[in-house]
Amino acid sequence: MNLLVLNGVNLNLTGRREKGVYGSETLEQINAELRAFAEAHGAHADFYQSNLEGELCTAIQNAEGVYDGIILNAGAFTHYSYAIRDAIAAVSVPVVEVHMSNVHAREEFRRNSVLTPVCRGEILGFGKKSYILAMESFLV
Amino acid sequence: MNLLVLNGVNLNLTGRREKGVYGSETLEQINAELRAFAEAHGAHADFYQSNLEGELCTAIQNAEGVYDGIILNAGAFTHYSYAIRDAIAAVSVPVVEVHMSNVHAREEFRRNSVLTPVCRGEILGFGKKSYILAMESFLV
Amino acid sequence: MNLLVLNGVNLNLTGRREKGVYGSETLEQINAELRAFAEAHGAHADFYQSNLEGELCTAIQNAEGVYDGIILNAGAFTHYSYAIRDAIAAVSVPVVEVHMSNVHAREEFRRNSVLTPVCRGEILGFGKKSYILAMESFLV
Amino acid sequence: MNLLVLNGVNLNLTGRREKGVYGSETLEQINAELRAFAEAHGAHADFYQSNLEGELCTAIQNAEGVYDGIILNAGAFTHYSYAIRDAIAAVSVPVVEVHMSNVHAREEFRRNSVLTPVCRGEILGFGKKSYILAMESFLV
Amino acid sequence: MNLLVLNGVNLNLTGRREKGVYGSETLEQINAELRAFAEAHGAHADFYQSNLEGELCTAIQNAEGVYDGIILNAGAFTHYSYAIRDAIAAVSVPVVEVHMSNVHAREEFRRNSVLTPVCRGEILGFGKKSYILAMESFLV
Amino acid sequence: MNLLVLNGVNLNLTGRREKGVYGSETLEQINAELRAFAEAHGAHADFYQSNLEGELCTAIQNAEGVYDGIILNAGAFTHYSYAIRDAIAAVSVPVVEVHMSNVHAREEFRRNSVLTPVCRGEILGFGKKSYILAMESFLV
Amino acid sequence: MNLLVLNGVNLNLTGRREKGVYGSETLEQINAELRAFAEAHGAHADFYQSNLEGELCTAIQNAEGVYDGIILNAGAFTHYSYAIRDAIAAVSVPVVEVHMSNVHAREEFRRNSVLTPVCRGEILGFGKKSYILAMESFLV
Amino acid sequence: MNLLVLNGVNLNLTGRREKGVYGSETLEQINAELRAFAEAHGAHADFYQSNLEGELCTAIQNAEGVYDGIILNAGAFTHYSYAIRDAIAAVSVPVVEVHMSNVHAREEFRRNSVLTPVCRGEILGFGKKSYILAMESFLV
Amino acid sequence: MNLLVLNGVNLNLTGRREKGVYGSETLEQINAELRAFAEAHGAHADFYQSNLEGELCTAIQNAEGVYDGIILNAGAFTHYSYAIRDAIAAVSVPVVEVHMSNVHAREEFRRNSVLTPVCRGEILGFGKKSYILAMESFLV
Amino acid sequence: MNLLVLNGVNLNLTGRREKGVYGSETLEQINAELRAFAEAHGAHADFYQSNLEGELCTAIQNAEGVYDGIILNAGAFTHYSYAIRDAIAAVSVPVVEVHMSNVHAREEFRRNSVLTPVCRGEILGFGKKSYILAMESFLV
Amino acid sequence: MNLLVLNGVNLNLTGRREKGVYGSETLEQINAELRAFAEAHGAHADFYQSNLEGELCTAIQNAEGVYDGIILNAGAFTHYSYAIRDAIAAVSVPVVEVHMSNVHAREEFRRNSVLTPVCRGEILGFGKKSYILAMESFLV
Amino acid sequence: MNLLVLNGVNLNLTGRREKGVYGSETLEQINAELRAFAEAHGAHADFYQSNLEGELCTAIQNAEGVYDGIILNAGAFTHYSYAIRDAIAAVSVPVVEVHMSNVHAREEFRRNSVLTPVCRGEILGFGKKSYILAMESFLV
Repeated sequence: MNLLVLNGVNLNLTGRREKGVYGSETLEQINAELRAFAEAHGAHADFYQSNLEGELCTAIQNAEGVYDGIILNAGAFTHYSYAIRDAIAAVSVPVVEVHMSNVHAREEFRRNSVLTPVCRGEILGFGKKSYILAMESFLV
Repeated sequence: MNLLVLNGVNLNLTGRREKGVYGSETLEQINAELRAFAEAHGAHADFYQSNLEGELCTAIQNAEGVYDGIILNAGAFTHYSYAIRDAIAAVSVPVVEVHMSNVHAREEFRRNSVLTPVCRGEILGFGKKSYILAMESFLV
Repeated sequence: MNLLVLNGVNLNLTGRREKGVYGSETLEQINAELRAFAEAHGAHADFYQSNLEGELCTAIQNAEGVYDGIILNAGAFTHYSYAIRDAIAAVSVPVVEVHMSNVHAREEFRRNSVLTPVCRGEILGFGKKSYILAMESFLV
Repeated sequence: MNLLVLNGVNLNLTGRREKGVYGSETLEQINAELRAFAEAHGAHADFYQSNLEGELCTAIQNAEGVYDGIILNAGAFTHYSYAIRDAIAAVSVPVVEVHMSNVHAREEFRRNSVLTPVCRGEILGFGKKSYILAMESFLV
Repeated sequence: MNLLVLNGVNLNLTGRREKGVYGSETLEQINAELRAFAEAHGAHADFYQSNLEGELCTAIQNAEGVYDGIILNAGAFTHYSYAIRDAIAAVSVPVVEVHMSNVHAREEFRRNSVLTPVCRGEILGFGKKSYILAMESFLV
Repeated sequence: MNLLVLNGVNLNLTGRREKGVYGSETLEQINAELRAFAEAHGAHADFYQSNLEGELCTAIQNAEGVYDGIILNAGAFTHYSYAIRDAIAAVSVPVVEVHMSNVHAREEFRRNSVLTPVCRGEILGFGKKSYILAMESFLV
Repeated sequence: MNLLVLNGVNLNLTGRREKGVYGSETLEQINAELRAFAEAHGAHADFYQSNLEGELCTAIQNAEGVYDGIILNAGAFTHYSYAIRDAIAAVSVPVVEVHMSNVHAREEFRRNSVLTPVCRGEILGFGKKSYILAMESFLV
Repeated sequence: MNLLVLNGVNLNLTGRREKGVYGSETLEQINAELRAFAEAHGAHADFYQSNLEGELCTAIQNAEGVYDGIILNAGAFTHYSYAIRDAIAAVSVPVVEVHMSNVHAREEFRRNSVLTPVCRGEILGFGKKSYILAMESFLV
Repeated sequence: MNLLVLNGVNLNLTGRREKGVYGSETLEQINAELRAFAEAHGAHADFYQSNLEGELCTAIQNAEGVYDGIILNAGAFTHYSYAIRDAIAAVSVPVVEVHMSNVHAREEFRRNSVLTPVCRGEILGFGKKSYILAMESFLV
Repeated sequence: MNLLVLNGVNLNLTGRREKGVYGSETLEQINAELRAFAEAHGAHADFYQSNLEGELCTAIQNAEGVYDGIILNAGAFTHYSYAIRDAIAAVSVPVVEVHMSNVHAREEFRRNSVLTPVCRGEILGFGKKSYILAMESFLV
Repeated sequence: MNLLVLNGVNLNLTGRREKGVYGSETLEQINAELRAFAEAHGAHADFYQSNLEGELCTAIQNAEGVYDGIILNAGAFTHYSYAIRDAIAAVSVPVVEVHMSNVHAREEFRRNSVLTPVCRGEILGFGKKSYILAMESFLV
Repeated sequence: MNLLVLNGVNLNLTGRREKGVYGSETLEQINAELRAFAEAHGAHADFYQSNLEGELCTAIQNAEGVYDGIILNAGAFTHYSYAIRDAIAAVSVPVVEVHMSNVHAREEFRRNSVLTPVCRGEILGFGKKSYILAMESFLV
């Protein structure tokens, strides 16, 4: 099983910004942990991060036929990117939406995700463990 | 670690209603699987289901000092029960909200949960596996 | 044919409260008339009233395989009980929603029923005759 | 007792359009059945259909002093014709609003009727039987 | 100076319906008074009433080049007839909107007129005198 | 008959500001014309203008038992002064609301008057003639 | 191929009203051009205009089995006529909605068409060429 | 004078939850103080708390003819229980709504009470003294 | 203890306007009763009323360091005066908001108070007793 | 005449995704057909597609002085990209908005285009023919 | 160049209230600094503060022909005073709106200014420097 | 002091598009003037413009530890880019939002900035001087 862990805008700052919200591990450290987790379950994981909405769309498009699942934290694009939504709807690869923080306990605008209706499921609020749980949803 | 798996209104019908949405395993079967999972991780799980909003509030109140975590699928109460929300806020036990279906891909009214802002996290869309992942969020 | 006449919150006061709106016959008197009507048409009717939302859900759940139709006046629950809505959607028994008063000629909040979309039909505004007409919808 | 059965816009197509929604009996067949029903109860029924909102208003105006009740299916005018609403409010003849389909289970715009607040009652969702039940509300 | 007094839907009932709101003089009596008033000021007035929205549009269209002003009480069409609004905007004849009752002291839906933005002015609340004052706005 | 012509905020600038909207006659000139009109009809008119909302309330309060009618152009207070609304409701003197411009053909916020529901009537769009017509509503 | 070009309320004024918006050719001239265009493509076109909403509904109803396509400019009815919408939905003839002006660059209320969801497509903003392009959508 | 002090959902936790908001006295302590206060004024007070919405309705229903006044803190039900509202409206016993906290200074959803329109009055923000003041409204 | 009883716009009419709503005692009579009540409790009360929003702000500003509490009935300013709200927030003197009538049982606009979020508490619906209870909240 | 056919996000998948909605021809095939059509009319067409919102803005900026018209299908950017809207408004090249599907018959969010108000016109619902018709609007 | 620095309601408390938001310098100190700044640039500045909305309107009216610019901090009036808005629109003196705090980072109601659309510009968030920058916009 | 002047989408067209709104100086000319201004105050300024939302986010991220302040005109991204908002919130560099035009005097959608709540301040309406004033907010 091949999985793609896809991180969107500003998530390259993880571990360096708002540590109270996002923890102090960097995205690279989290990804390393996820890679190990995947391999421990006999799977393979690739990782991609971009601040560009369109490149995230392209990455999702290119996942068709290559990956068995996508773990997506789109960052702020979650709340308005119908482009990413359409990319998800255009491919047959199932997508699990994750958020590290409990987005419903923060600003009002974060309560709406335009992506969830076309995702398989959503996991939020568990810090880096949100990614792990999403990976488990595919592997276990 | 002691966990309480709390199911709300109409979830006693799981496995018998709308199987396309909720699967064909009964709540009892799911609970048995969850119990085994907990025990395999050296934890203990109790189970309670009620169709009465107020009894769910009481169950949450009584969890204080007894359980280390609550896994809550409040069913339709999710969308309007500020009573349950207040019960969650009143106890120090962390609550993880779960839904078997992707509530964001169904009717509009299911897109709003009044509970999430006071929960630790939320997991939705994975069928019975939503409960398992929630349990993992406490155990792993 | 077996029918269940199900009355919700505060309808036990019928005949004693706001007589200008609900008439002066008690719920027991109305039910007696409905029972006679059913029997005159070779059918059987049972009656249940509760002020508890969850018990109404349970009654609807238990109607599966027992009754051929439910006549439901949910009282104020009509306007916000997604729990009752889900119970109706979960069973295969057809439900006819009734209201004694013309709920659209009263306060604004009474204009929205969260139940109607999952009921077979709705009859409102005819006082106790609303129940009779609902029964006729099944019997005649 | 004299009753007027008044059908509005596009209801002349009944039995020919969207049979899944409206059944396959034509308006003429339904009216014949209603006429027989009325006569069986010692009453008389007249029938009128128009696609013109203003002519429906005139028909309601002219019912004053002639009919003891109006059974009205205004079709799509239901949702925006304050003109018909005012006509109903202007006469002393009681009006019962009917719909063959469950308008609350269809498009969102069909959930609002501007007419109901000035009608005696409303019956919806029973196909052609909606008309019969409305007639019974006057006759039985 | 030639004026057209144009009355819309249900205003043919004036003097016969809701006398507490509209007074007990018929439209014919009011029109006679208006005709006399016009002539006393050396002007001429014509009168037209229709329950049909489209015929009111046609009447407004035909006023071009014939009348120097239109006094318009569109009845309930006031609140939703963009068709009449467009007819008013399409002609160069100035239109004064009148209402006999204070529409802002009645139901909420009567507070919005889609016509006023394209009329010269509006006069409301003075019973039949609303028409007289509108006529004065042209004549005096 | 004693009338009070009451002008609100910024109307002291009439004739000097936005002449395209309000004309080039000053408030004093308009008032002089109104005074003459009143006297020609055997009535008496007093005039008061203030930029202070509270003083307008006081003027309305003090009109009780002194004036037979008030002609009120509240200026921008029209759109939010529930204080003036309450003052109008508190006295038995009938109030006619006037506006020189067609407030419905300008910015959206000018389309709502919080005053009209408690006024006898409203006249708008006729420039200074709006005042004259309002005076006629009392005198003729 | 038989086509019906159907124009709604106030479009009979085309070429005479608001020429900046609608151009200076009359509806007759535009229709003549359309007829020639249709014949040049071996098709036949009929033309009908009405200011009456109900007659437009009837025209659409009667198109069933007679025409292969309808080109519809409903004028202001576009924005609120659920009656016309239902007529379109009731027939199997495909309907193309056209507007001469760019309705999205004008008043806010013109941005909503209740008709488009049941039409095959929509063409707007090209003046009389909107009709030509709609015809091409059927012919070419 | 007989008074009923009625507390709703989660108020049994008073003194144990969110002490910053609700103080550290338990409901039992507050009730004892209220009982003493009543007796000092020659009155009698009974006390009832329930987490079940329907039982609160029943308690209100049963107060008819037994109590001279009800002091009601419905907890979170305040914001959506039209069932409790209807129970209040159904009895002739006057109800005073109380809240310990200033509900308008907290989350937005707490700013709306569906109960107040059918209560005699409302007192909020004074901690346990809110109950005392409500009792005084009946006794002093 | 020094208290300031502050009344806003139109409250100088108390006892003379809408007696069904506000009772027949004048503000002076109510104030005399309040003064006596204060003195009976060993406190002192001052009284101020103004129809001018800005003067009410100034009065609140000047209360700093002079009064131990303010009892405020702002009248209609309650619903829109963010100026008064800011004045309350700017001083350290606690403010209790009072209304004689049950503002939630009247017009919709009276249901929103912009002041309550910055007040200590609110008391409404008890006629003149609302002031007394507010005074008790400080004194007893 | 030089035309630019500009396709936005996810349209590179045309012919491969949701064929029921978008048909089975690839964007390259459609573009080839458009090129031939342009040349057959003595015109020239260039083609550009990007998933990046900003690159689409740049392409529109660079069209100034180079192209006589732009045919734009912005994909999901249609619904929120005020950036593209501003780019269109900044150039003098006329833009025709196209959509292959009837966006008004799909999800609610697709009913709003932020681009149309600054485009010359809009064509939607005709599959690949939408592009052809747009090209005709420039060429014929 | 003559400038008027105009401060609205509660700004006389600057330096004494909410110092975390507004700093600890008094309005007099800020004004002195502004006066010096103006003189250093060869200009003259006058200063006026009022808690009365109407007096602020009058001050703006009187600025016509006297001042070359107004620097306006209207305080809470910013959010609802259409009276001040109209005063600004009525004079030809350009007005620059200032706020010391970042009003968009505070309560929701502070995010809307009814004044900005008729001002030349707006400067907010820089504490007392907001005034200085506004002065520079005129002087430098 | 090091400052970054950051311009977003379409601002590369400044001086060439809509000169009535944005003036006729190019961005390069404005930047040159800003550079000189900075140097005259002993500071250094860098400049960056991009049409790509994600590159603007990256630029803001990279400013951490490099610049002492950012002057940001995000163009149309201002109104919906929660991505840029999050980037601003993620860095400790203070950001001043600028707009050349008075965005509140243009289309409704321009009245909402999703960025301002996380910026230090905002300056708008002064053309190129908006940038200068923003620079002064850091330098003077």
